Amino acid sequence: MRASQTLIATVKETPADAEVISHQLMIRAGLVRKLASGLYTWLPAGLKVLRNVERIVREEMDRSGAMEVLMPVVQPAELWQETGRWQKYGSELCRLHDRHGREFCLGPTHEEVITDLIRNEINSYKQLPANFYQIQTKFRDEVRPRFGLMRGREFTMKDAYSFHADEQCLEQTYQSMYDTYTRIFTRLGLDFRAVIADTGSIGGNASHEFHVLAASGEDDIAFSDSSDYAANVEMAEAIAPQGERAPAGDKLSEVATPGAHSIADVTELLKIDSTQTVKTLIVLGQQPIDEKGQAIGEQLLVALVVRGDHQLNEIKAEKCSAIASPLTLASDEQIKQQIGCAPGSIGPVGLELETIVDRSAAHCSNFVCGANRDGYHLLNVNWERDLPLARIEDLRDVVAGDPSPCGQGVLDIKRGIEVGHIFQLGTTYSEAMNATVLDQNGKQVVMKMGCYGIGVSRIVAAAIEQNYDDKGIIWPTSIAPYQVAIVGLNNHKSAAVTEACEALYRQLSEQGIEVLFDDRKERPGIKFADMELMGIPHRIVIGDRGLKEGMVEYKGRGDSDNQDIALAQAFDTIIDKLAI
Amino acid sequence: MRASQTLIATVKETPADAEVISHQLMIRAGLVRKLASGLYTWLPAGLKVLRNVERIVREEMDRSGAMEVLMPVVQPAELWQETGRWQKYGSELCRLHDRHGREFCLGPTHEEVITDLIRNEINSYKQLPANFYQIQTKFRDEVRPRFGLMRGREFTMKDAYSFHADEQCLEQTYQSMYDTYTRIFTRLGLDFRAVIADTGSIGGNASHEFHVLAASGEDDIAFSDSSDYAANVEMAEAIAPQGERAPAGDKLSEVATPGAHSIADVTELLKIDSTQTVKTLIVLGQQPIDEKGQAIGEQLLVALVVRGDHQLNEIKAEKCSAIASPLTLASDEQIKQQIGCAPGSIGPVGLELETIVDRSAAHCSNFVCGANRDGYHLLNVNWERDLPLARIEDLRDVVAGDPSPCGQGVLDIKRGIEVGHIFQLGTTYSEAMNATVLDQNGKQVVMKMGCYGIGVSRIVAAAIEQNYDDKGIIWPTSIAPYQVAIVGLNNHKSAAVTEACEALYRQLSEQGIEVLFDDRKERPGIKFADMELMGIPHRIVIGDRGLKEGMVEYKGRGDSDNQDIALAQAFDTIIDKLAI
Repeated sequence: MRASQTLIATVKETPADAEVISHQLMIRAGLVRKLASGLYTWLPAGLKVLRNVERIVREEMDRSGAMEVLMPVVQPAELWQETGRWQKYGSELCRLHDRHGREFCLGPTHEEVITDLIRNEINSYKQLPANFYQIQTKFRDEVRPRFGLMRGREFTMKDAYSFHADEQCLEQTYQSMYDTYTRIFTRLGLDFRAVIADTGSIGGNASHEFHVLAASGEDDIAFSDSSDYAANVEMAEAIAPQGERAPAGDKLSEVATPGAHSIADVTELLKIDSTQTVKTLIVLGQQPIDEKGQAIGEQLLVALVVRGDHQLNEIKAEKCSAIASPLTLASDEQIKQQIGCAPGSIGPVGLELETIVDRSAAHCSNFVCGANRDGYHLLNVNWERDLPLARIEDLRDVVAGDPSPCGQGVLDIKRGIEVGHIFQLGTTYSEAMNATVLDQNGKQVVMKMGCYGIGVSRIVAAAIEQNYDDKGIIWPTSIAPYQVAIVGLNNHKSAAVTEACEALYRQLSEQGIEVLFDDRKERPGIKFADMELMGIPHRIVIGDRGLKEGMVEYKGRGDSDNQDIALAQAFDTIIDKLAI
Repeated sequence: MRASQTLIATVKETPADAEVISHQLMIRAGLVRKLASGLYTWLPAGLKVLRNVERIVREEMDRSGAMEVLMPVVQPAELWQETGRWQKYGSELCRLHDRHGREFCLGPTHEEVITDLIRNEINSYKQLPANFYQIQTKFRDEVRPRFGLMRGREFTMKDAYSFHADEQCLEQTYQSMYDTYTRIFTRLGLDFRAVIADTGSIGGNASHEFHVLAASGEDDIAFSDSSDYAANVEMAEAIAPQGERAPAGDKLSEVATPGAHSIADVTELLKIDSTQTVKTLIVLGQQPIDEKGQAIGEQLLVALVVRGDHQLNEIKAEKCSAIASPLTLASDEQIKQQIGCAPGSIGPVGLELETIVDRSAAHCSNFVCGANRDGYHLLNVNWERDLPLARIEDLRDVVAGDPSPCGQGVLDIKRGIEVGHIFQLGTTYSEAMNATVLDQNGKQVVMKMGCYGIGVSRIVAAAIEQNYDDKGIIWPTSIAPYQVAIVGLNNHKSAAVTEACEALYRQLSEQGIEVLFDDRKERPGIKFADMELMGIPHRIVIGDRGLKEGMVEYKGRGDSDNQDIALAQAFDTIIDKLAI
């Protein structure tokens, strides 16, 4: 493509409403423009990137044996009523009426539509497994759309849905999708991790998220430095410390800690490390109910004990029996009433509540904790000597340096951007919609389902979050809008430069390489800045001065320096770099 | 693709709600399924056809220099308010609110969005011309969606919008789009015509529709048998008959025609041909108004005279000065009151109304017409002898056999399905939205615009309307879901058949040919019927009996008979047929 023949819509100023780097660079490099909150138009260079991502996703989905279909954006309410999601989905579901007053929604996801299709088209186990995917526009009416294409309202997604007669078959397809996603993100040239994810409220048996690692990610990912193990921090198991607890030392004593309400206050006051303390959080217990489901008796409280330097993991805590869901901290008044002190002075010694102790806290000896008396803490507390240790659970977020739960290496923690999610749904949708097949014995069985999503447009943004510098984007070659930029210096004034540029442009284009030939009547500085901002991986600069010696300049987008090469070698150099 | 690995969703029964053949066959061949009124899911085989159409459209648009973009489906009301279409568009525009109560619509077309983009991105004549296109989902809330994909509510369209500093530049791009569309429909393998179209209420200077010729089309197309000339019947000029009028004969006389109210009645009664009669239609004239725009005086009537065998063309009549727009027939009471007879007995002789005579009617001699007296007609009427001939216009629809207005050949009339439309919009949108550039003199000028649409999903249906027989679809090779079907007879029982099928399947697939290998455990009759219903252009049948002699069967989808060929020649035969 000649730059003069396409829309190079680069801008110098960072747009005021763009908070994250990918949003800033997508505007500045002329990839997208905002139409309205959360709605973006893809400009020519941006669309090329989006299509490259789509192509790789499609090729690998096809290779996996999945069948491509295309379902409507607009979906009738009736199907969503069958699964109950019409009521449950909330305001992210954009609802509308047609001219006859019938209710529809803009599809944020297509479980209902595909399940309706398949219950009509597939009726025997012999037709299974079957895996259908589409690459389609989705709409989610986010309450506060932001971060540009990272969390827009209208976006492009690849969603796939698999159907199975039994669990084992679902597990096989799930594994095949896991492998396919691994191939896709590898081909996209991204540093990613497949992480064990929470199956959340949908239920189901297994789930992995695929995250692109980037400092701006919204999720914390814990992963082993020595194996493939990776999990959302919420999901990563904090394993019990190895070895015996240190022996108990001095006798327990009370110390006045006036004004010390937090772990930081206490450690500063007592000149100790936070690993030598435990903190005690009070949450609501499960409300006892009578046989009619009516709440009876007083609201019970439960104490959770974690080491002073650790964070309570709410998802893990919520899964403990005896604790109310969703996890709810007791109010200051409830604590005052039942324990007799403020939250900052609670400790497990003598506490008349069910107490659950985190594995690491349970390994502490001679620790400091609140005295259940305002203004006082206890020193040299020891489990089993000073207080019972009845129930131990994994209650905390893992931290960097923890041993990996896979048994190999230690955990590192990085931020990730979720770009894919695979899920064993089980029968959540097929049961509600009565999607059955005849099994080998001629019996009707409800199909098992899996679902597999990739945020196609979000990948474009995530790739930038992972690959940029102060000059702009640094595209992985596989998704770059153009693989090569040819910059002619004063090409509109020099016939020799124009001729050399045209010849190389033709030669590379004939190999199917996407080349942007910057033939604009612009100053060299503007051309260099634009090609770098747009992130084109390889650049050849052709000018009169070099041509006299038969030389041109090559620079890879990530390189710090130019390299002089013979014009006659330019073509081969690019072919080498692209490893074609 | 192996048939066992994809969804072959053929059905025997013609669906009850499918009125047209393309809708019936798209359901029966398993290309689409209905989700709700006017909403369809594309199944794997159907999507392959849709993608083939998209690919050809995209390749030719790219070749024309148009730039691909992608605009959102959901559009903010504000832009539509700027052009006034938010009010004007009517119920086909599907409107919705987001969670904050802001108004949006689902885009039925994107003039507003692209004009908004371009007024921000382009500010100099040096950046023009620029032509942007997208292939995107559109939504029109049709009052009665029908004919399947021919007139759905959600559909795929290619829409392009060009921007220009002057009229001449617009005309050049318009011509380039005309040529591009001609290449596209030629490559799609369709019998089509580019027809001159009415620019309608939008105004603008020129417009062509591209029609696929098919008996089920909704539009009548008139075209020359000897040139490229083609026009919508409403737009085709009926040129004046050649030569002098025949000389006047016998004197005018009155004849009693009791009960004869129509041309058919009169010609039967008088044993004459309808070409020897004229009919007179009375319509409302332009209401005289005073300087304040208030209607004054009596409603004037105007008489329109066309030959008895011709049809009044309302669009042509409406364009005549003196006639009210929209064209409105006078009521029986108005006619009775001003002329004194019923509509069936009107004639131009002695009529005290402005009278406009069609060119062919003006060429009649010795004709029959109403006597303006109930129950009587006049014989041997002659213009200029018996009544004045003041105003002659083109008032009628052309008919087959009329001389072509291009001067070459005579007109034929066929039905067409509109699949493309190109339009010189002028400044309709750019003026309303203040989309200007600086011209060569540094003056702000409003950009001229063109728009160019192709109904991508409708093409799939139109191709079927033009290409089918009693066994199913007959795809043009360029858009067929598969170019070749390999049918193994009892392949699951015969190792020799399986081996031969697999070898040919591999050989053809390696050439990039889309092959459907029907490896299902089905009876041969079912396989043959499915492959024919699905319209696959070339079929190779491999069975044990033939293999003993080293022979297989070839049949083109349009052929009446099988052809025995050597297995060793099967590959070359297909390559030859596909002219690769």
